[in-house]
Amino acid sequence: MLKNWNKPRCPEEEELLTRLKAARERLTVQQMQIKEKKLPVLILFEGWGAAGKGSVLGKVIRNIDPRFFQVATMGKPTEEEARKPFLYRYFVQIPEAGKFKFLDGGWMDEITQAVLYKKTDEEHYKEQIESVRRFERQLTDNGYLVVKFFFQISEKEQKKRLELLKDDKNTKWRVNQDDSWQNKHYAQCMDVFEQYLCDTNASQAPWYLIDAKDKKWAELQVLETLVSSIDTALKNASLAVPLLQNPFPLEQAPKLSEVKLDKELTQEEYKEKLEKYQKRLRELHNELYRKKIPVIIAYEGWDAAGKGGNIKRITEALDPRGFEVHPIASPEPHEKARHYLWRFWNRLPKTGHVAIFDRTWYGRVMVERLEGFCSENDWQRAYNEINEFEKELSDWGAVVIKFWVQIDKDTQLERFKDREGTPEKRWKITDEDWRNRDKWDQYEEAVNEMLKKTSTSYAPWHILESNDKKYARVKALKIVVDEVEKALKERK
Amino acid sequence: MLKNWNKPRCPEEEELLTRLKAARERLTVQQMQIKEKKLPVLILFEGWGAAGKGSVLGKVIRNIDPRFFQVATMGKPTEEEARKPFLYRYFVQIPEAGKFKFLDGGWMDEITQAVLYKKTDEEHYKEQIESVRRFERQLTDNGYLVVKFFFQISEKEQKKRLELLKDDKNTKWRVNQDDSWQNKHYAQCMDVFEQYLCDTNASQAPWYLIDAKDKKWAELQVLETLVSSIDTALKNASLAVPLLQNPFPLEQAPKLSEVKLDKELTQEEYKEKLEKYQKRLRELHNELYRKKIPVIIAYEGWDAAGKGGNIKRITEALDPRGFEVHPIASPEPHEKARHYLWRFWNRLPKTGHVAIFDRTWYGRVMVERLEGFCSENDWQRAYNEINEFEKELSDWGAVVIKFWVQIDKDTQLERFKDREGTPEKRWKITDEDWRNRDKWDQYEEAVNEMLKKTSTSYAPWHILESNDKKYARVKALKIVVDEVEKALKERK
Repeated sequence: MLKNWNKPRCPEEEELLTRLKAARERLTVQQMQIKEKKLPVLILFEGWGAAGKGSVLGKVIRNIDPRFFQVATMGKPTEEEARKPFLYRYFVQIPEAGKFKFLDGGWMDEITQAVLYKKTDEEHYKEQIESVRRFERQLTDNGYLVVKFFFQISEKEQKKRLELLKDDKNTKWRVNQDDSWQNKHYAQCMDVFEQYLCDTNASQAPWYLIDAKDKKWAELQVLETLVSSIDTALKNASLAVPLLQNPFPLEQAPKLSEVKLDKELTQEEYKEKLEKYQKRLRELHNELYRKKIPVIIAYEGWDAAGKGGNIKRITEALDPRGFEVHPIASPEPHEKARHYLWRFWNRLPKTGHVAIFDRTWYGRVMVERLEGFCSENDWQRAYNEINEFEKELSDWGAVVIKFWVQIDKDTQLERFKDREGTPEKRWKITDEDWRNRDKWDQYEEAVNEMLKKTSTSYAPWHILESNDKKYARVKALKIVVDEVEKALKERK
Repeated sequence: MLKNWNKPRCPEEEELLTRLKAARERLTVQQMQIKEKKLPVLILFEGWGAAGKGSVLGKVIRNIDPRFFQVATMGKPTEEEARKPFLYRYFVQIPEAGKFKFLDGGWMDEITQAVLYKKTDEEHYKEQIESVRRFERQLTDNGYLVVKFFFQISEKEQKKRLELLKDDKNTKWRVNQDDSWQNKHYAQCMDVFEQYLCDTNASQAPWYLIDAKDKKWAELQVLETLVSSIDTALKNASLAVPLLQNPFPLEQAPKLSEVKLDKELTQEEYKEKLEKYQKRLRELHNELYRKKIPVIIAYEGWDAAGKGGNIKRITEALDPRGFEVHPIASPEPHEKARHYLWRFWNRLPKTGHVAIFDRTWYGRVMVERLEGFCSENDWQRAYNEINEFEKELSDWGAVVIKFWVQIDKDTQLERFKDREGTPEKRWKITDEDWRNRDKWDQYEEAVNEMLKKTSTSYAPWHILESNDKKYARVKALKIVVDEVEKALKERK
């Protein structure tokens, strides 16, 4: 890419100015079309230090109303960010529908620096490349426009610019150590950049190399590319996206109708086992914290299946400073305006912490599917997107435990009636619960498909037979204890 | 991928047999759905020597009616194939709609062997990876299902199998030099395979690693993956595909209405220049042949614009053993059943030869667009697909020259009438020509869009002002001479 690059021809001054004017005007018009069609636009500025990214970025945004864009400068990860999955701080930055987000530096910077400063190995690099590819593709599949610029200048040009900046006391601060290091190791950086650009040059989000020797010319290249990319993206705005093949190893998952619900515990058995596993989990939580292993526990299940009480038996055993429970209701407007996994990325635990989700990202393939909150294409694509999401968590080192809390239809009816008949439980039952109950069969079909398509080897589903809540609670605790013990053993 | 692979768990014998039976039956049913939905299925078998690819392939096809599949074993390129672009011999192998094509070995073999035997360099490797990615994506974008298997066995297992084969005089022939070399250089091969698998592991056509230690288990993995891939592909069969951003540098192209058509030559000027350029082209053709540079000349233009006569002035200067003219009419049924570029891949010249296309692959964005022979999504996607196709040709080393032969509407009318009035020219004019003429404005719009979107720096359009045919002929010859001279100079 960079190495055998045929630079585009810089036009004469007059043509340059005419084309600049045309592109600027076009962008001004497009911002309204973007808003109207709810297109989210993510623009990455990468490239050599002192290549003029900031200055061009400043010129591009002049054509856009400040209400429609945000700029984020991605420096090094903070201590807090370093305790989240690598993609976390980028995922939370994605723009909302109808707006621009400009990133000055981003995941390319982070990954290539790690290679250059020998803070990574080949295996980890490849894993990150896979993550980036999936991330960028998930965005474009979900209707995002992703435009990636790399600003190119020669070794000589960079040296000249850095010296100019250093010579002036007002600009001296803008030259950081990394820039100087880059210039001293230009050839080596070139190799690493070249490799990264090739590795992440996806059809749906290609790299655009910008000849950054002249500022106006760089601005024109950026603007013309941006404008034509937006035109294409506007055409795509309402298209369905072909489903991807599942590339992940799946475990055999049972159908709900095959689950035997006659399992139960006596009060004594319950008390004894509950104590035993809670005690063990309490010990393990400390170890998890010490070894900085994050745990994510996801609960799905029928209304009144006993999720709440089940979760409580887990949290009773955890140090309150080390866990968080996230009850998941319908998304807020600012959440709806983004990729549906965004609100879950935002709620990921730090390393060493436990996050429990009371209802989860699987809403996409259950309630959103059945209530028509997303298109058929959206939820059909989601199985793979969710498998990718959980792969990200698992690669990060998280223990991912997924529970389906299962009861039969009669038991649900009993519990609904009990809730209605008991004043202090009445808040727990709503009209929606009754409406969902009417769609039991459709939900069952959706759940079966979900279990089949998302029981990956790294994040399989566990069924909790919850006609007897005691049985389900002890089973959940035992699974959490087992999975955590396994993880601790593997990472000794 | 290979290196940090978590092998799937091989089930017990009983479960294995049940699942095998289910998958086989499913495939038998699917072959009819594939035929009905016209789904083309391309299946690649790659992997270590003696991993059992052939034996599993043999078992898989037992479930499919022989009318619905073909198997091709891709050995080393023949001398003839070596004189075509690298992808040529694979592109011509793609299945037709509704059928399976199994490839035993393929482009992975060719590319990785070149790396292992040090017959390639990094730059060339990367170029090939880009080619492969585009090729596989073009297929899936155009409705193909592409399933890629890699059969994995350990060094020890391979050694054992090779020795067993060599010990028996009936199977000795099956062990070739490459297999033995592989086993001796297992770790090195592993590195190269790993890199290739990572580089080409696309979301829309992922790699499936097959644990090939046990034959039945390998068969089950292949069958279950295939069956689930087909299910997904059948769902996608009628979906539109989002348009890709243009990643190629474009030249500014004129609008047809801006083309000045008053250029002409006197008879004397014409004769003199014609002779001069034809003489020069004759000389150049020998040099082209000697240096093995292929030339592709593409003609598009209005009916009666003078394409035929123009082409004749080129071919008069060429050695008849070194060129071919391809008149392009509507595709035959066997061509229609494949990717629309297939018939052009089939007609590519050998190195050192000249291929002239009288009408071209641009039919996709002109007649097919206007007559509704393909969907809007199809022709909108085609600009990028064609740019990719021509990039392939250009990377291969071909000189690609594209002519648009331009006349105005009055001139066309004159020539139509002249054709109708002259008995020996009457065959040249058909009702279709008159119908196309009625759509002049729509065609003009389509041509303008085509010129704008496909004038790449490596294959720009040239406009031939052909109200005066003499002028157009001399201009065409001069461009061909200039472009060929430039190419010869660059490759000294």
